[in-house]
Amino acid sequence: MSKLVIVGTVAFDAIETPFGKTDKILGGAATFIGLAASQFDVDASVVSIVGGDFPQEYLDLLVDKNIDISGIEMVKEGKTFFWSGRYHNDMNSRDTLATELNVLADFKPEVPQAYRDAEVVMLGNLHPLVQMSVLEQMETKPKMVILDTMNFWMDCALDDLHKVIKKVDVITINDEEARQLTGEYSLVVAARKIHEMGPKYVVIKKGEHGALLFHEDNVFYAPALPLEEVFDPTGAGDTFAGGFAGYIAKTGDISFENMKNAVIYGSTLASFCVEKFGTERMKQLSSSDVHQRLNQFKSLTQFEIVLE
Amino acid sequence: MSKLVIVGTVAFDAIETPFGKTDKILGGAATFIGLAASQFDVDASVVSIVGGDFPQEYLDLLVDKNIDISGIEMVKEGKTFFWSGRYHNDMNSRDTLATELNVLADFKPEVPQAYRDAEVVMLGNLHPLVQMSVLEQMETKPKMVILDTMNFWMDCALDDLHKVIKKVDVITINDEEARQLTGEYSLVVAARKIHEMGPKYVVIKKGEHGALLFHEDNVFYAPALPLEEVFDPTGAGDTFAGGFAGYIAKTGDISFENMKNAVIYGSTLASFCVEKFGTERMKQLSSSDVHQRLNQFKSLTQFEIVLE
Repeated sequence: MSKLVIVGTVAFDAIETPFGKTDKILGGAATFIGLAASQFDVDASVVSIVGGDFPQEYLDLLVDKNIDISGIEMVKEGKTFFWSGRYHNDMNSRDTLATELNVLADFKPEVPQAYRDAEVVMLGNLHPLVQMSVLEQMETKPKMVILDTMNFWMDCALDDLHKVIKKVDVITINDEEARQLTGEYSLVVAARKIHEMGPKYVVIKKGEHGALLFHEDNVFYAPALPLEEVFDPTGAGDTFAGGFAGYIAKTGDISFENMKNAVIYGSTLASFCVEKFGTERMKQLSSSDVHQRLNQFKSLTQFEIVLE
Repeated sequence: MSKLVIVGTVAFDAIETPFGKTDKILGGAATFIGLAASQFDVDASVVSIVGGDFPQEYLDLLVDKNIDISGIEMVKEGKTFFWSGRYHNDMNSRDTLATELNVLADFKPEVPQAYRDAEVVMLGNLHPLVQMSVLEQMETKPKMVILDTMNFWMDCALDDLHKVIKKVDVITINDEEARQLTGEYSLVVAARKIHEMGPKYVVIKKGEHGALLFHEDNVFYAPALPLEEVFDPTGAGDTFAGGFAGYIAKTGDISFENMKNAVIYGSTLASFCVEKFGTERMKQLSSSDVHQRLNQFKSLTQFEIVLE
């Protein structure tokens, strides 16, 4: 059983969409990544920080999914990171209503000793220096390090971001962020420039338009499943990354062909995430749900053209 | 050899992109559709109208591609339809600088007698009443009628558009137009509403984000090939439709499985169209170019996940 280290936020989210709104519910990048990765037979550990206000039932949920939580520090007198946002009618854009860093402001991640030889490391969206400190704690070189990031760090910590990007095998980034990071509009050219920054594999997430995986001159495209309705996009990108990382950890195969499958698994799991608020859908996800949807992805994309 | 009737504009275009600009060059929906369909072993006839200013060499080009031009009326004292546009930096939006209808204002299409039993009819973007008059001239029921249209006709001839939509098997339409036609943001819901208007098959073109084919509860997704640079998007949608229609006419197979292939051929040909100004790339396209790019589409989209 492969080990997977996941660092990222474990948080409270409050979400408004055209379909309704929530109070503070379970959120955070590491939460979504962990829930997605838990679909695979991997030994995953989440490294994060929460406050004394964080409910035991949320921690129990992670433990129920066989996720190790010994790397989640609880600061009794502190408050959990909180994010609140409102999605616009098209669900493709959102306004941030509140960001309260709270305990996250002083987060010094500590990878549990038992996971410092993990084969796969997933660096969820966080300050690049925090991501770097996790890498530095690894005692054996991981087979694969995957980094997710966002435009915020390009605006305020670009040099640090470049340093951590240089150290990773795979970067997952959305289309606008890829353009911002490289100054290139064409995603093909942007991916090439990001390759030159370090990562051998570049995954560009395009939301409802799917995801592209680049490696040297190869490119693979996984569509998003066309859905009648996107109920809440929160966590879809993290779920995609968690599915990708979990599948790689499970198979231990880092060939391009296998990474295509990882992208398909990521898209498949993300297609569930958006069906309900927050983690609601991911909590109840069965392996037969996943199988059924993988078959939908096959019929969505596979064709038979025989060339004479 | 199947017969294919194509009705649409044969025109002059003048195009500005960030890469340069052209004088009046060969353009028009039927031109792009015809050039794309000519990649297949079909007997295609273009039904259109031009003025006395239309160069013989442009007509010769179509004849060289084995396209029947007996249905292209030439009005000696008239001027050819002219369109001019300027693309923005992102190449996804454009301003129309000029539209001179000229001879198109009085276009009464006449399908050549030898083609009134054609198996496939491709109604390129034109006033819906003009499209309807072509259908009315068919003496045997075509195996498949494909309609392309645009938002302009929704704004100014919606009732007539609904009448012709009701008569066709396949509609090709872009995402914004599908939303305008149905008032639905979700393309899945929009496709269902368009089904209810008549067409059994709905193709929604999403430009650089590919195309979706809907039929009852089935959906197929063909990505656009990720390109380093899109030089000129003019005619890409018509080229897609022409590839689709040509492949259906060649194979004579209107099953959903075969229509998937038609969509892939359409995307493949459209990926060439945008590489140069106007029809330049399509004029020189060889079948080995097409085979090579179909293989790129395969490696772009095909994966092997074995479900236990």
